[in-house]
Amino acid sequence: MTVTIQEVIDRIGKTAAERPNPTVDGLRFGGPDTIVRGIAVSFMPTVSAIERAIAMGANLLIAHEGVYYSHQERAEGLRPNGVYERKRRLIEESGIAIYRCHDDVHRCVPDGITWGLIEALGWEERVRENRPAASLLTIPAMTVGEAASYVKERLGLPFVRVVGDRSMSCERVGILVGYRGGGATVIPLLESDEAELIIAGEGPEWEAPEYVRDAASLGRRKALIVIGHAESEAPGMALLCRRLQEAFPGLSVRFLADKPVFDLI
Amino acid sequence: MTVTIQEVIDRIGKTAAERPNPTVDGLRFGGPDTIVRGIAVSFMPTVSAIERAIAMGANLLIAHEGVYYSHQERAEGLRPNGVYERKRRLIEESGIAIYRCHDDVHRCVPDGITWGLIEALGWEERVRENRPAASLLTIPAMTVGEAASYVKERLGLPFVRVVGDRSMSCERVGILVGYRGGGATVIPLLESDEAELIIAGEGPEWEAPEYVRDAASLGRRKALIVIGHAESEAPGMALLCRRLQEAFPGLSVRFLADKPVFDLI
Repeated sequence: MTVTIQEVIDRIGKTAAERPNPTVDGLRFGGPDTIVRGIAVSFMPTVSAIERAIAMGANLLIAHEGVYYSHQERAEGLRPNGVYERKRRLIEESGIAIYRCHDDVHRCVPDGITWGLIEALGWEERVRENRPAASLLTIPAMTVGEAASYVKERLGLPFVRVVGDRSMSCERVGILVGYRGGGATVIPLLESDEAELIIAGEGPEWEAPEYVRDAASLGRRKALIVIGHAESEAPGMALLCRRLQEAFPGLSVRFLADKPVFDLI
Repeated sequence: MTVTIQEVIDRIGKTAAERPNPTVDGLRFGGPDTIVRGIAVSFMPTVSAIERAIAMGANLLIAHEGVYYSHQERAEGLRPNGVYERKRRLIEESGIAIYRCHDDVHRCVPDGITWGLIEALGWEERVRENRPAASLLTIPAMTVGEAASYVKERLGLPFVRVVGDRSMSCERVGILVGYRGGGATVIPLLESDEAELIIAGEGPEWEAPEYVRDAASLGRRKALIVIGHAESEAPGMALLCRRLQEAFPGLSVRFLADKPVFDLI
């Protein structure tokens, strides 16, 4: 039985409760009628992920973020023989198709990216409520330091960044993936006491982190663990990969992990 | 000789080449006609900085960022007896005035915040060109790892985050403070080879960091050191403090450093 790229895209689309319009999702390279020989899934369509996808014989890469380092995929300061052009050449010469799957997987109920992170943390049974931009959990009481070490170990991360008193005990946790770590999404959850601890991907440093710092100075029990954008969303793409393995058992469907983008010095 | 808060504000305004309209700068608490007893300057008007300013007898705090964790200082999810209200009460009960000085200090030529960082790095003589959003330098050739260690040591930081090959030698450096570490500002400098190494405050993780990661995979010599938003801008506010000390020699004018907002685990 053969499967086309369009059939894979349609299968992903069926999982979304609502398809946003306009959407950033779409086929960036390749054609919808191509027969799929193998699928690779990654958080970011990095040069490394593309090369590994080609090497394993996949002709479709499904990635959460864009090819060109911007949500709307504008090409900034494009130069002949620069990074953009070399990347485009790598993709076109290999013939690999790239499908961006961002909005659909976020519009699953619960959000497929958030749920992937919750599964990776082993906290599926701890969820109180799934909202569009955040999930609220009640975890076994532990200190912020213990929670940070737990998250770091479960996700295999070299480090996480923490704001607040690490000896503070916490149970009510809010999880916000990707760029949802900004003040407008994080602060109301803390200010209302719906969460004592937020685990987030990334967000502006002068917003939620400074709120939490002030809260701690004022004796309010609040803390924040920032794990990184890719680190918070890659587990959701790994979950999408497992769902596609179930949907297309005859196809090779593999998740490609990337190393953390940042080294510490 | 007495000095009013308005006279201090006017003195700061005289340094800006152009005053943006609208501006986020302005007196948030206190009145312009109050006689200044002492000035404290900080990057962020944290609860800790406000308490230290009060303790040292200052009645004017000049800070770069807003009181309420958002560039436009919207209050998110305000609750009675929450962090916002307790902070407001602390400020009003003490009677301290708070002046936000963001746009004026960025509109100095060269940008006062960028120049403060360049001075803190001891690289004033290395500047090739000051642009509004970036300064371009040619530094003595060193590896990315050496540059990261140098920056970390000069600024007294516990860590910096690095993308790219740390053994890569570099001379052409772009410096972008605060939130200027996004793709739209960073990538053109790298793509055009005006800079091999960018030292930035913060920016979205899927933009400049992923560009640099791909560039390294494609054999292009690019690197990025992310030092943190406050870490990149506090030296500029310390420079403003020194300028105010010169302008008002009869007044106590002191810079209040805050610890880094993030701990590593």
